[in-house]
Amino acid sequence: MSSSFGTLFKITTFGESHSAGVGVVVDGCPPGLVVHESDIRKQLDRRKPGQSPITTQRTEKDRITFFSGLEANRTLGTPLAMMVVNTDRRPGDYDDFRNVPRPSHADFTYQVKYGIRAKSGGGRASARETIGRVAAGALAEKFLADVWGIEIVAWVSAVGVISCPDMDMETVSRDQVDESMVRCPEKESSDKMIRAVETVKASGNSLGGVISCVCRKVPAGWGEPVFDKAEAKLAQAMLSIPAAKGFEIGSGFSGSRMTGLDHNDLFVRKNGRLGTLTNRSGGIQGGITNGEMIFFNVAFKPTATIGISQKTADFDGNPVDLVGKGRHDPCVVPRAVPIVESMAALVLADLALLQKSRM
Amino acid sequence: MSSSFGTLFKITTFGESHSAGVGVVVDGCPPGLVVHESDIRKQLDRRKPGQSPITTQRTEKDRITFFSGLEANRTLGTPLAMMVVNTDRRPGDYDDFRNVPRPSHADFTYQVKYGIRAKSGGGRASARETIGRVAAGALAEKFLADVWGIEIVAWVSAVGVISCPDMDMETVSRDQVDESMVRCPEKESSDKMIRAVETVKASGNSLGGVISCVCRKVPAGWGEPVFDKAEAKLAQAMLSIPAAKGFEIGSGFSGSRMTGLDHNDLFVRKNGRLGTLTNRSGGIQGGITNGEMIFFNVAFKPTATIGISQKTADFDGNPVDLVGKGRHDPCVVPRAVPIVESMAALVLADLALLQKSRM
Amino acid sequence: MSSSFGTLFKITTFGESHSAGVGVVVDGCPPGLVVHESDIRKQLDRRKPGQSPITTQRTEKDRITFFSGLEANRTLGTPLAMMVVNTDRRPGDYDDFRNVPRPSHADFTYQVKYGIRAKSGGGRASARETIGRVAAGALAEKFLADVWGIEIVAWVSAVGVISCPDMDMETVSRDQVDESMVRCPEKESSDKMIRAVETVKASGNSLGGVISCVCRKVPAGWGEPVFDKAEAKLAQAMLSIPAAKGFEIGSGFSGSRMTGLDHNDLFVRKNGRLGTLTNRSGGIQGGITNGEMIFFNVAFKPTATIGISQKTADFDGNPVDLVGKGRHDPCVVPRAVPIVESMAALVLADLALLQKSRM
Amino acid sequence: MSSSFGTLFKITTFGESHSAGVGVVVDGCPPGLVVHESDIRKQLDRRKPGQSPITTQRTEKDRITFFSGLEANRTLGTPLAMMVVNTDRRPGDYDDFRNVPRPSHADFTYQVKYGIRAKSGGGRASARETIGRVAAGALAEKFLADVWGIEIVAWVSAVGVISCPDMDMETVSRDQVDESMVRCPEKESSDKMIRAVETVKASGNSLGGVISCVCRKVPAGWGEPVFDKAEAKLAQAMLSIPAAKGFEIGSGFSGSRMTGLDHNDLFVRKNGRLGTLTNRSGGIQGGITNGEMIFFNVAFKPTATIGISQKTADFDGNPVDLVGKGRHDPCVVPRAVPIVESMAALVLADLALLQKSRM
Repeated sequence: MSSSFGTLFKITTFGESHSAGVGVVVDGCPPGLVVHESDIRKQLDRRKPGQSPITTQRTEKDRITFFSGLEANRTLGTPLAMMVVNTDRRPGDYDDFRNVPRPSHADFTYQVKYGIRAKSGGGRASARETIGRVAAGALAEKFLADVWGIEIVAWVSAVGVISCPDMDMETVSRDQVDESMVRCPEKESSDKMIRAVETVKASGNSLGGVISCVCRKVPAGWGEPVFDKAEAKLAQAMLSIPAAKGFEIGSGFSGSRMTGLDHNDLFVRKNGRLGTLTNRSGGIQGGITNGEMIFFNVAFKPTATIGISQKTADFDGNPVDLVGKGRHDPCVVPRAVPIVESMAALVLADLALLQKSRM
Repeated sequence: MSSSFGTLFKITTFGESHSAGVGVVVDGCPPGLVVHESDIRKQLDRRKPGQSPITTQRTEKDRITFFSGLEANRTLGTPLAMMVVNTDRRPGDYDDFRNVPRPSHADFTYQVKYGIRAKSGGGRASARETIGRVAAGALAEKFLADVWGIEIVAWVSAVGVISCPDMDMETVSRDQVDESMVRCPEKESSDKMIRAVETVKASGNSLGGVISCVCRKVPAGWGEPVFDKAEAKLAQAMLSIPAAKGFEIGSGFSGSRMTGLDHNDLFVRKNGRLGTLTNRSGGIQGGITNGEMIFFNVAFKPTATIGISQKTADFDGNPVDLVGKGRHDPCVVPRAVPIVESMAALVLADLALLQKSRM
Repeated sequence: MSSSFGTLFKITTFGESHSAGVGVVVDGCPPGLVVHESDIRKQLDRRKPGQSPITTQRTEKDRITFFSGLEANRTLGTPLAMMVVNTDRRPGDYDDFRNVPRPSHADFTYQVKYGIRAKSGGGRASARETIGRVAAGALAEKFLADVWGIEIVAWVSAVGVISCPDMDMETVSRDQVDESMVRCPEKESSDKMIRAVETVKASGNSLGGVISCVCRKVPAGWGEPVFDKAEAKLAQAMLSIPAAKGFEIGSGFSGSRMTGLDHNDLFVRKNGRLGTLTNRSGGIQGGITNGEMIFFNVAFKPTATIGISQKTADFDGNPVDLVGKGRHDPCVVPRAVPIVESMAALVLADLALLQKSRM
Repeated sequence: MSSSFGTLFKITTFGESHSAGVGVVVDGCPPGLVVHESDIRKQLDRRKPGQSPITTQRTEKDRITFFSGLEANRTLGTPLAMMVVNTDRRPGDYDDFRNVPRPSHADFTYQVKYGIRAKSGGGRASARETIGRVAAGALAEKFLADVWGIEIVAWVSAVGVISCPDMDMETVSRDQVDESMVRCPEKESSDKMIRAVETVKASGNSLGGVISCVCRKVPAGWGEPVFDKAEAKLAQAMLSIPAAKGFEIGSGFSGSRMTGLDHNDLFVRKNGRLGTLTNRSGGIQGGITNGEMIFFNVAFKPTATIGISQKTADFDGNPVDLVGKGRHDPCVVPRAVPIVESMAALVLADLALLQKSRM
């Protein structure tokens, strides 16, 4: 297990999907930050299941409790421990899976790695593990917003084969994103995506998708070459999210098809600072932020739990017909939006503190 | 700076492109490993410039010297320090760049971050920084091959808009890869790629591309959820390579367009172990290897240094016409192949030791 | 803040003396370990206040709750989060201290460092912070005992100027230690120490002391030169305990007064292994355990909180007469015994896993 | 192996006593620092053997080479690699030891831990390993002196049973220390110590001793509770030095014999800041520096290599008469003085950067 992330703004998450609770300890959060429970809750609410007809119907209150590090709504500079109690525990739903590793889940690999696994649910491989990340990420966002005015906005840019057009990254907002049940801020695409999700839901199938994210007002100078380059830590952060399969920064895979002349971001004077005319670099050059907007995409595979029979094998290799029974999302990307934002915030908060130590 | 990578098999690299040398200290390499200079040299040779007409003509001997940790060709379990002397130092080539940050290079961001930068060349942002990684990676590979028979093979699967068809990942070998000047093991695509590189080279322009990599015979059980999942560490490792813009594991971005029913890897008995019929997971489930082949793609942007005039700005924001003069690769991907393999080996060696501590 | 300790067996503690709770997340505890609440409780009970007339009368139930990582009393290999609720919160006791930094406490330094501090009590500098360490240490002890039969026993070897004679380190046991209210297993010294504590208690004064600790059955080969040598990590662990002022391993300071001829531990065949005739090394040579018993001493200063008026200054530098009011121990060493054992266990468990990764 | 130390000002050392060289990579040294080779050399010269009749006659030039990170005598913010070539390699001296583990050396434990060890000399357990520490420490000192005017002075306060009186910690200087061949700045004690060393040298025996160290002008607020408290990191740093057996901060072991009333450091206004009347805390309270002088003692055991026959056993447990042959110091403490200073500087530089990240 490696349940810690970050060097100075460091989080340690804990909790299985069916343990007493899931939570996080944030060590290194700067002191004197004003934090209210609502700052954390709003992102947890965006992450929680049961928000709309197209997410899992598992309802969770996801009410956060602070155990330490905060007094009179100010951070003390000491570790902040936060937890959400697991109230909706129905381990029975998963009993059938005991001898059958669910295809494309972590049941098999956890068993091999640890020689034991949680009796029910996906244990630490469950999406519920991300609650700690989102709580900590909301805190990191508060820090980034208060000190630098940083804004982080993620949205669903593809569901299955349906992609939305490029958004205006200067202006796209969480409000726009949340107007859509599927968290795609472009109405036409959103409608198509919702229909696509409804269709797979009806058949017990599932869909994947892509989340795009922009981070605005990030100062130049953040990122620690050569191994903790800003894009490298973002890549690690994003690929650590359950179901994530790909990451690209700036021009990404499509940039690999361009020539240098077309791809290079030429410098230009911009509001008193040196900026770039284009931003194919995605706000990062040589692993260090350059003052332009950071943007990236994260690919997610379709939900592995489906309601359709699958011809697979049990742990002993015997053929089995398996039909999923647990509650699940037909498409994970809408609920993964705040998780992507949170992981981005955690990366940036850590890089911010690292750069502060240099100045 | 964060010049260290790994928890137990840990490397620390050093050196600018025009300092006395570039090298690496490997701490945590298991003792008793048989290592010859040639084990390291063969990968360094594949990385070095001047290998073919389509790479940079900067010639480097890249001869590795061991300073410690090895006695009578056996590792002692103590830190191995290795260095390549920088023999071909021509700082004069870069003098023109002093006041002009090269577009899509790290000149600007290094200046902002550190308030100072190396007089010449790209400093730590130079491709030459990767020598230490390749030397350490070759050592990691030796360890992985000796103990588990692991094979890591990377190849160029795209140059600009030219992609090669899917290779047989069971059999593709470094010998096949090295038969091609552009390191694409499929003859027809290779020919097209070479022509494309020659064309951009002639015009002073450059191309990007994609490298694919397969890791065979990796045991099940490696990877440390939740933040050091195998794919998350691979993503960090790959995005830390200069010019890398994207990473995808297994089905990657294309997997995000599939349904769960089509995407799930069904289990099946396989040579006495539990395997999967398909491998869209890319050998990793829940962040832990499952015994299938690991495979992934890495996108690289086109070389930023080009021989065509660019209308950019100097550090003060004044418009400048800039023509690149330094020697450079018209396409970085052929030489990045051993770098991708090396970073993969470093990730796997570290995860291997981490899992050993558990058993 | 650096609230994490350990590389593979890693703990992260949280909680102020008057926050909702104090606890710990243990990441990297091996899976499959059988753990009952009583395994943890017995050490917490030895740490808690109010155990005897000579400790503070602040009564704490110190009941531990497991949040995660344990199922049917077996560790899952995932993070174990444990917490003790702070039930006896009387922040009012400390109101007088708001403008006066208590002498030889951390009030002043926390204020300078963080620009803010917990309203009441010592915050993270409070002895209550050690609950998380003791809970995690009890877990580490269980692991060490189950796998290697390791025994860790600490005792009070000095209170103020009263020292007890050398104990038989082969046999000294926790039962013997706990027979004494002051945790000194030698009856005559114990009696003297108790009287000494009663005397300072009556006058509102306080005493320091020394804790000795032996770790039996530790295998040879543990410890990570050159910076994480076994004695170096023990030293860090012990000096991180509140009020600790000194550490010595084996012959320690008195060894510095010997000659090499007298000090050297000669090798000899011992029950089929190579052992040493004497053990001035304290079981560690070159930073690595040698199979002999590890033993060390830790010095503790007298409790800083006293009931006698002190002429000190407030935060603005104005002279103040300060009389302590909070409940406090007249001598910290009896209750610090399980803390020393716990920190020793945490160091050894981590070194054990590190060495396992090498084999 | 754990050859790295520090979180932000991080060093990684390498090299055996008889490998090609010994050195260090310093990652995280702030950019723009002016460093000359002489800044490093002066401390290396104080560490090197052959300085006086009472140190080992092994002569080493210990000339440092910079490989990277420095340009025109300014640090670039990138890793600084430095190495001293091992010129005086006489592995033959140690051949007799191959089958006999030297008493109180690390031959036995390295063999057990790694299953292999360097053919000759003490490998990484050799005092020569400390060259990298001293080079890096000199760099750290330069940083601390340039930014805060910090002064670090260590001296020999005891050799065997001979102790020197308390020095004036406000004024004791390296010049005073270096006037004494044994590095004790008090003339009378120095003379006695020199005679004592000469006596044991004549008989082939050896002596231990104590080094005291003061750090002046350290700002308040440095140190990272709870596990990386300033005194905890100093303790780890000091106990990681070869032959160190004990550490005490401020009043240390003698403080454990005082009452709280006598021990507490009362606050008082001092040159416009809040200071303490006494300094039994040794400049650290609650793990954080308080603006007073930091001081501590480190105990060293007598040199294990002696020229007198010892009745010990070989690796198979067979009795052997062993007479040491390698060149050695009759007393290690004079040459350990710059090592203690260097490790103190490394701890402080790291804590400085950590605190800067918070401001």
